[in-house]
Amino acid sequence: MGEENKVTVHGMWLSPYVKRVELALKVKGIPFEYVEEDLSNKSPLLLKYNPVHKKVPVLVHNEKPVNESLVILEYIDETWKNGPRLLPEDPYERSKVRFWAAYIQHVMECMLKIFKAEDQEKACEEFYQKLGVLEDGMKNMFPEGSPVKSRNIGLLDILIVVAFGACKAQEEVFGVKFLDPNNTPLITSWLNSLLELPVVKESVPPHDKVVSFLRFFKESSSNAQA
Amino acid sequence: MGEENKVTVHGMWLSPYVKRVELALKVKGIPFEYVEEDLSNKSPLLLKYNPVHKKVPVLVHNEKPVNESLVILEYIDETWKNGPRLLPEDPYERSKVRFWAAYIQHVMECMLKIFKAEDQEKACEEFYQKLGVLEDGMKNMFPEGSPVKSRNIGLLDILIVVAFGACKAQEEVFGVKFLDPNNTPLITSWLNSLLELPVVKESVPPHDKVVSFLRFFKESSSNAQA
Repeated sequence: MGEENKVTVHGMWLSPYVKRVELALKVKGIPFEYVEEDLSNKSPLLLKYNPVHKKVPVLVHNEKPVNESLVILEYIDETWKNGPRLLPEDPYERSKVRFWAAYIQHVMECMLKIFKAEDQEKACEEFYQKLGVLEDGMKNMFPEGSPVKSRNIGLLDILIVVAFGACKAQEEVFGVKFLDPNNTPLITSWLNSLLELPVVKESVPPHDKVVSFLRFFKESSSNAQA
Repeated sequence: MGEENKVTVHGMWLSPYVKRVELALKVKGIPFEYVEEDLSNKSPLLLKYNPVHKKVPVLVHNEKPVNESLVILEYIDETWKNGPRLLPEDPYERSKVRFWAAYIQHVMECMLKIFKAEDQEKACEEFYQKLGVLEDGMKNMFPEGSPVKSRNIGLLDILIVVAFGACKAQEEVFGVKFLDPNNTPLITSWLNSLLELPVVKESVPPHDKVVSFLRFFKESSSNAQA
């Protein structure tokens, strides 16, 4: 990797937004350096590269920072055009992918509300409603189902596996069934086929480590409310 | 305009998100039909074209709907490549535009909180903090200031004029100074230069109509809280 094309990712091992960037780079075959940030003591470089949000992920390409995971993914796709494309070429197909990418963001925000347990029942109701809409939308986009076998991994694959890839650990800690194959057969089988891919397997953090972090998070949240 | 390239926008006259789309089409020189929606009685077409959010704007191009204003703007730019481009060609410059586009969205959400008067003082504080960050960011992007004179109108111009173009009416109704040239000289002079452009002038709704709508909105909100 020449210095003229140096790529660094500032991340935190559990962050799904960081995982999006890591997966995109791996799928495109772009070598990168990874810097783990301690979010309770952010590095001067992180603060320099993302002065607005002071958050991970940050992608640094030849000293130039790019922030916000979806912006980073589009940057990666537009900069390295030779590898497999994350977004389709056709503008209309691209617009559909961008629409659902924004929607998946809403679904993830609903999941976060469940984790924070502010009003778990209401948060779950909102989550299942949005998840149903996503399932229907994905059925329209992929009428032949299980969409990963016959093509390259794209933006929506990355967002789905990152959004739901830690479901089992989350279910164990929060006692909520996030994905039910009876209600969301397409998303469930899609996720399972994604989790089988080597590039995904090597990116998913170990189940036990996620569970123990989530338990710590859950206890901190409930102590903060007590 | 041939039927093979028919463009329709479903909108509501006051919606800044609709204005984004109208302005983008005008800047690119794309003829379109405009359908005003009654949001208290949405048309079957709107519900058909945007079943997920049931919101305006919807762009319909040759019977195919595109939703979400930023997604629509990118679609327009990628589909009609011959007119002036809304986003820069260079991927890094594009990423900066996309980053600040998302940020302007946050700023607009803060303004909405002020309108809703849930906790006006806190909402104002958050708004001014974010506005200051935006001013600094724009100074970095346009170090020579007042950026509209020497170039085509781009995505950020559209977002800025739509976000702040009705400031005077908003100030009159809500008693809050949204833009102060002492604190945000670049954004203020930028906005003023945009408001002078013929394409903008013909898109801005009449001041008195905006004021009377906002008064109605303000009274409805305070009645709802009483």
